[in-house]
Amino acid sequence: MLPIAVDAMGGDTAPGEIIAGAKRAAEELGVPVALVGDPARMGDTLGLEVIAASQVIEMDDDPASSVRQKKDASLNVAARAVRDGRASAIVSAGNTGATMGAALLRMGRIGGVARPAIATPIPRPLAGGATTLLDAGANAECQAAWLVQFAQMGAVFARHRYGVERPTVALLSIGEEKSKGNELVKDAYGLLSADDGALAAAGATFIGNVEGRDLMTDAADVVVCDGFTGNVALKTLEGGMKTLVSALFEVFGATEGTKAASEVLVPHLLPLYGALDPNNTGGALLLGVDGVCIISHGSSNATAIVNAVKVAAEAVEADLVGALRTAVAK
Amino acid sequence: MLPIAVDAMGGDTAPGEIIAGAKRAAEELGVPVALVGDPARMGDTLGLEVIAASQVIEMDDDPASSVRQKKDASLNVAARAVRDGRASAIVSAGNTGATMGAALLRMGRIGGVARPAIATPIPRPLAGGATTLLDAGANAECQAAWLVQFAQMGAVFARHRYGVERPTVALLSIGEEKSKGNELVKDAYGLLSADDGALAAAGATFIGNVEGRDLMTDAADVVVCDGFTGNVALKTLEGGMKTLVSALFEVFGATEGTKAASEVLVPHLLPLYGALDPNNTGGALLLGVDGVCIISHGSSNATAIVNAVKVAAEAVEADLVGALRTAVAK
Repeated sequence: MLPIAVDAMGGDTAPGEIIAGAKRAAEELGVPVALVGDPARMGDTLGLEVIAASQVIEMDDDPASSVRQKKDASLNVAARAVRDGRASAIVSAGNTGATMGAALLRMGRIGGVARPAIATPIPRPLAGGATTLLDAGANAECQAAWLVQFAQMGAVFARHRYGVERPTVALLSIGEEKSKGNELVKDAYGLLSADDGALAAAGATFIGNVEGRDLMTDAADVVVCDGFTGNVALKTLEGGMKTLVSALFEVFGATEGTKAASEVLVPHLLPLYGALDPNNTGGALLLGVDGVCIISHGSSNATAIVNAVKVAAEAVEADLVGALRTAVAK
Repeated sequence: MLPIAVDAMGGDTAPGEIIAGAKRAAEELGVPVALVGDPARMGDTLGLEVIAASQVIEMDDDPASSVRQKKDASLNVAARAVRDGRASAIVSAGNTGATMGAALLRMGRIGGVARPAIATPIPRPLAGGATTLLDAGANAECQAAWLVQFAQMGAVFARHRYGVERPTVALLSIGEEKSKGNELVKDAYGLLSADDGALAAAGATFIGNVEGRDLMTDAADVVVCDGFTGNVALKTLEGGMKTLVSALFEVFGATEGTKAASEVLVPHLLPLYGALDPNNTGGALLLGVDGVCIISHGSSNATAIVNAVKVAAEAVEADLVGALRTAVAK
């Protein structure tokens, strides 16, 4: 396998944790990894291959213009390395908009894909597995036909990533009936129920609408929406979990008695805590670009990078991009 | 005060819990209450005043057609009672769409209001108080000018309900910068920042965009969005909380040790649990109709009805509708 190009300059913990994660990925997974970044700013690269890039797109840079202007930015160099056959995938914890922009501009789209979408796994602490939510933020405005492609791509992703043989696909709406929702959702509902072949080619079944409360359950394997709604839902869930976990820790520390009790409970809570920790999900995938592109969250630690490299390597080995190409060709 | 008209036929627990709640409200709060429903199906009405209605709109009836066809449905009778000066407010745990429809059709809108919106309090377990989210589901499609009115009405509500003297108002979006969001949000951002008078008349301040993760914090007192996005966010939060609480209880019951430890913790967790319990919020308000209309959640128990009657009575006494009229007249 060609090396996974890890953007050493992107994310709140870059470059230290990113490089440490890349090193661990190479050692623990046996996956070839190349760091992309400015050698002068990376410090010790732990013996990993380095692809030099003299510029950095910062977290608060404007994505569209910085991708065009900073041609030698690590993200652009990484995307070109994939395009030119020097790397097999990108992993970045940097500026999400710029990661999308670099991937789209340098790697291009899979033929026939109208718009790439961000597929984000939502943990299911009770049911197990994950619900794939897309678009989680790439396209603030969408057309119904794009949502059909998101459904196709999400189904392929759920099968490859989570081994769901025949994924169920739903639209995110505000009621289960097909009359519920905004115009976009109602139009997409019509397309997905009329054109059964669109999902049949992806080996999936359209099951109608689900609601926000179903995201952390196994109501559907894939939940499709526009990128505005998806990003609001994702951030709402993250914020809610964070608030509740913080409130719990406040209670745990309230008295000597609660401290002692929580010491008994915490080891049993670790699996739940782990299931909710975004460092463990392996990141989101930008589906629809002509290559594997993993968007890891901004505060990724070394473990997040290990998991992202693992997901990237699996996607490359399973030829996820080829499967996406076949699914959307219908 | 004229009696609060409580829809005895609406909700999963109707009529038993609803009537029990109405009775408790009358006794505990000293607020006059009238039950609206079919005397033949209500059973013991505990000595409360009854306004007879021969029909019921069921939870799965189509809201628009049932409101028109079932003219003597409890929701229609309750709304007419407010219009005709026989009652001061409606409280219903029934079909949300039909409640909105009956209120809109029978009570009408406040002059100048383009569309009523559902204002739902989001609890803040850490920061205290509540964030008012609107529209939480009345209008799946919105125009930017409506969002400006939602902002005005939400600000009035936050002041009346939560005593926030000068509420901060934000748009729900997918990034803080004004360039972030869909067209609707960007247009509303422009209107709210240009026309400062719109919120000044409501005694509020526009602070820009917030994200989904801010809903359970004190980032803004009022968060404005279209009803599709708001309903998705609300349901996502409810589902996430429910999943996490269930997962916690699983851990609590895992072993003899965790059971003993959780017995120590549970009393300390009750305030948090109570803050998240929708029975304690007092329900959502339909803002913009010409009368006080409380939408209580479908699984409301007696306590939820007591709290809803309390909120309704406070809104009537403080002349919330008059204050809304003044705020949107600007």
